[in-house]
Amino acid sequence: MSIRVSFSEMKETAKKAFLNLGLTEEQAEACAAIHTASSADGVESHGMNRIPRFAVYVRKGWINIKGTPQLIGARGAAENYDGQRGIGVLNALFCADRAVELAKAHGIGLVALKNTTHWMRGGTYAWRTAEAGFIGINWINTESCMPMWGSDVKSVGNNPFCLAIPREDGEIVVDMAMSQYAYGKLGVYRLAGKQLPYPGGFDKDGNLTSDPGAIEESMRILPAGYWKGSSLAIALDLAAAAIANGFCGIDMDEEGKGSCTGCNQIFIAIDPYLFGDREKTQEMFNRRVAAADAAHPIDPRHPVRCPGENTLERRRQSQAEGVLVDEAIWAQVQALAAGDMDTEDIASF
Amino acid sequence: MSIRVSFSEMKETAKKAFLNLGLTEEQAEACAAIHTASSADGVESHGMNRIPRFAVYVRKGWINIKGTPQLIGARGAAENYDGQRGIGVLNALFCADRAVELAKAHGIGLVALKNTTHWMRGGTYAWRTAEAGFIGINWINTESCMPMWGSDVKSVGNNPFCLAIPREDGEIVVDMAMSQYAYGKLGVYRLAGKQLPYPGGFDKDGNLTSDPGAIEESMRILPAGYWKGSSLAIALDLAAAAIANGFCGIDMDEEGKGSCTGCNQIFIAIDPYLFGDREKTQEMFNRRVAAADAAHPIDPRHPVRCPGENTLERRRQSQAEGVLVDEAIWAQVQALAAGDMDTEDIASF
Repeated sequence: MSIRVSFSEMKETAKKAFLNLGLTEEQAEACAAIHTASSADGVESHGMNRIPRFAVYVRKGWINIKGTPQLIGARGAAENYDGQRGIGVLNALFCADRAVELAKAHGIGLVALKNTTHWMRGGTYAWRTAEAGFIGINWINTESCMPMWGSDVKSVGNNPFCLAIPREDGEIVVDMAMSQYAYGKLGVYRLAGKQLPYPGGFDKDGNLTSDPGAIEESMRILPAGYWKGSSLAIALDLAAAAIANGFCGIDMDEEGKGSCTGCNQIFIAIDPYLFGDREKTQEMFNRRVAAADAAHPIDPRHPVRCPGENTLERRRQSQAEGVLVDEAIWAQVQALAAGDMDTEDIASF
Repeated sequence: MSIRVSFSEMKETAKKAFLNLGLTEEQAEACAAIHTASSADGVESHGMNRIPRFAVYVRKGWINIKGTPQLIGARGAAENYDGQRGIGVLNALFCADRAVELAKAHGIGLVALKNTTHWMRGGTYAWRTAEAGFIGINWINTESCMPMWGSDVKSVGNNPFCLAIPREDGEIVVDMAMSQYAYGKLGVYRLAGKQLPYPGGFDKDGNLTSDPGAIEESMRILPAGYWKGSSLAIALDLAAAAIANGFCGIDMDEEGKGSCTGCNQIFIAIDPYLFGDREKTQEMFNRRVAAADAAHPIDPRHPVRCPGENTLERRRQSQAEGVLVDEAIWAQVQALAAGDMDTEDIASF
């Protein structure tokens, strides 16, 4: 059961939870803003829902709250940072902003972050790059959680890939995992007693199925586009590990902490007006998006939308009416904020 | 019905066909090598099969065989070229190589090519970048040939995206259209009287189907990963048009020549040893690929393969046993080489 909580109340509560975990005022403020914004944008799975697991990881020492990005290499338009297993969100925000600075100087900028922790919602950094006026390309490598195509065991990360376009009338942002549905989404459908709209994995007998519970049981989640999703996932893994000079997916499997611990993240920013004119480029963005949105719909009640447009609508609604949060999750965040929840209580997250 | 023709005979025959179209010795040699290599790698659809359509486009004047890439902008690690509607393959080869040169100087290099023509197989440039020792990222925008998710009419390009890893023991290369199956592939299955392995589009009544003929009829080809494929496709369109300062997809729709005429192509090269050591990076590539390939297979007769590995196997087989080509296509290429085929004969391609 979900309830709506005002953006400011949610952010203040989250901030208190982060302060209770030992974060500084500045760290807690930034993390609370990002987690609340993710829930407000409709990505609860990496917003409020992730605060309990973050607390567990901090208390286990798997997230080093004193870690910050350390410059360990710089060459031309590229920089390499060691995240010191610090707070994933803060490491990633820093690097996304550095990529924009490099792009201002070189037209394109690349920041490769190694040895960091979960950045929560990948789209956070793509949106931020686009809001700064730059095209953003981001990806990550993570531990194995999806079968390679042709395998029946998890053997590659679902390494998300983001591409963001700085349209001033509303950013266009793709934030896609390489699996058709995230595990979090399967749980949402199962709890609601619903089938997935399209097959999302294989059951234990190897049949393609839309039954979320059967997929959770087999752990044979479907790569998006079948072989395409796992092909891109393995290539993104190799590219991230090479560019950042960090762990590849199986190094994370071996360490076994899960949840992206020790991963790499790649931040590329490109000046959209490298060779063109701002006004004409924005006009082209608007014209192209309008044409896509005007494509004849299958169902007139569901007009076509470019990626990011629905997110902006949810963001506006959340700001006006409050942010949706699951009641049980909200109770945990409130307990963390009140300082009366210990690691044992939340160890299942 | 397919036959095998030796690589050298195929290349020489293709070269004669290109010479008969008015290409110079050097142009014909390069185009013949690329088209033959694509067929040898198993991508016949953009190898031999495309030579007749190329001939039509040259004779119509839609491909300007005198066009070459003109530098129209340079900033930091980025360059912009006008392809003058020249030969797509040659324009793209030039730009892929320039991106590598820029990456040598800046760690990362970006070349944005506008106003060009079909580059044939996207993977050509990704393989080339990887063979030069660099990570390659390429994409293109093209005219509308796929419905946006939620629409029943073609409204976005299937804008392919490539990512290549320079593994010295065999490059890892993803070359993916945004549709689950290319139109060319539907034709192959239909002619063979086969159903697609997985649903590839909607029939005229809006049902998801694996019947290739029904999809060709409706033109409602399925985006890879449902909404994911068309979301990424529209973002790639916007990004390519902005960075190259060229046409967006609907500009190409309006001009109406089809087959990528007037499109943009993006070439990004990244030094894989920006911050790491060559030997350790290659060892990581080998270790990661070996682990993926060793993932427990669903069917032991079909072990898991990373993208590019099957291509290299086909390449070796083609070199040893000859390159597969459809008999009817081969007859057309031979007729073009003999100079006894006019535009009317091939206008249907």
